[in-house]
Amino acid sequence: MPLILTAVQGFPLVKSGDDLVGLTVQALSASGLTLLDGDILVFAQKIVSKAEGRWVNLATVTPSHRALELAQQIEKDPRLVELILKESRAVLRTRPGTIVVEHRLGFVCANAGIDHSNVAGVGTADEEWVLLLPEDPDTSARRLRDGIQTHFGVSIGVMIIDSHGRAWRLGTVGVAIGLAGLPGLVDLRGKPDLFGYRLRITQVGVADELAAGASLVMGQAAEGTPLVHVRGFPYPLREASLVELLRPLDQDLFR
Amino acid sequence: MPLILTAVQGFPLVKSGDDLVGLTVQALSASGLTLLDGDILVFAQKIVSKAEGRWVNLATVTPSHRALELAQQIEKDPRLVELILKESRAVLRTRPGTIVVEHRLGFVCANAGIDHSNVAGVGTADEEWVLLLPEDPDTSARRLRDGIQTHFGVSIGVMIIDSHGRAWRLGTVGVAIGLAGLPGLVDLRGKPDLFGYRLRITQVGVADELAAGASLVMGQAAEGTPLVHVRGFPYPLREASLVELLRPLDQDLFR
Repeated sequence: MPLILTAVQGFPLVKSGDDLVGLTVQALSASGLTLLDGDILVFAQKIVSKAEGRWVNLATVTPSHRALELAQQIEKDPRLVELILKESRAVLRTRPGTIVVEHRLGFVCANAGIDHSNVAGVGTADEEWVLLLPEDPDTSARRLRDGIQTHFGVSIGVMIIDSHGRAWRLGTVGVAIGLAGLPGLVDLRGKPDLFGYRLRITQVGVADELAAGASLVMGQAAEGTPLVHVRGFPYPLREASLVELLRPLDQDLFR
Repeated sequence: MPLILTAVQGFPLVKSGDDLVGLTVQALSASGLTLLDGDILVFAQKIVSKAEGRWVNLATVTPSHRALELAQQIEKDPRLVELILKESRAVLRTRPGTIVVEHRLGFVCANAGIDHSNVAGVGTADEEWVLLLPEDPDTSARRLRDGIQTHFGVSIGVMIIDSHGRAWRLGTVGVAIGLAGLPGLVDLRGKPDLFGYRLRITQVGVADELAAGASLVMGQAAEGTPLVHVRGFPYPLREASLVELLRPLDQDLFR
């Protein structure tokens, strides 16, 4: 069976407090897409954050001394720097405009994943709002999955993704930031290959591979669609959480 | 149009000197898969290396002093360490069993991408052969593309992929190591988003996103298939090379 990734067209603009399960059911129906056991729905972080009201009005943020210093050093809005620091456990590197952090959710990303583009639609024109990542994307994914499964009477996986840069390659790629009901890693260590050799480097980041593929069909600009329907995921679904994709600090060679 | 990734079943074991274009034409036909303008074929590095005869018999390798020292330090076969160093421009980090290098091809990866599993099929049972990456994967991709385009009379993209680990996340993911006829990056900088904001972080690593998706359907173990047929890639095809995906050293915060 092929892997089929379909961008769900016509997803409405999401507002704080919106019922994402309801909007998803409507958008799938309007697109003529069905859900079967084993299918996966991939949500862009942005709409989950919006529905959860993760907006912050920059006018309400008072930068700390540390934020002011760092902001001057890297030429960035000190209020935004304050939010980035608040959302993070550690600063790994900085350069003009960018702070690479360990996010409080455990992964490494730029600017704590705080979104400053394509996030208008709240407040008045002279206000500046930014959008934080969901409070707990694993829980958000589980809630979405429970609601959608109940509605359709099927067993599916749900993933929330964001776009991350990479240390040594240009261009962002989609990565998982929240998982429900699909494996983060598939561990093929020890399975014999065609010639009976033991495989070596064979923990595969299957959720991130799917996240990248889904990100590709979402697009990033005005024509973007925040929901992707996946059929044909080649591994059995199971319970999981994002933490299985995070490299423990004691295995990290690059901090 | 959805993005459809189909693992091409029944690809034969590839030997040194095999005609990959011919094998690809046969495997596509046997699978009932057609090629249309805009389709992409994704090849696992392994079969390209095999066809190009990139085998090395470890018995023929004499480790240098540097390789002997490093091998003892990280508990690895000194002959393999010698090959890793020879295939690399720089060593970034080491830990037991692993040398993270800048490969001579420009990307950062573990153990210079030299494959020690699933690569038998040459030599006698008591010999140990390993498989290097293709000499020049962009050129390999271009050659494959030219041959396949000529046979089918269509305009397609061809990509060669490998599996790489990540600095801060567990699990390997598929990444491009050679490109012909499809973009590595799509640059959406400056395009207005839904609300007229200028987009900011919007160089998207579309080739790597596709590589990850293709890797997902290839699998890694005995049931793996080294060729994936892609329909519905959402960006226009164009000439490109791997170098556009490589972060220049002066933008690198993590060496």
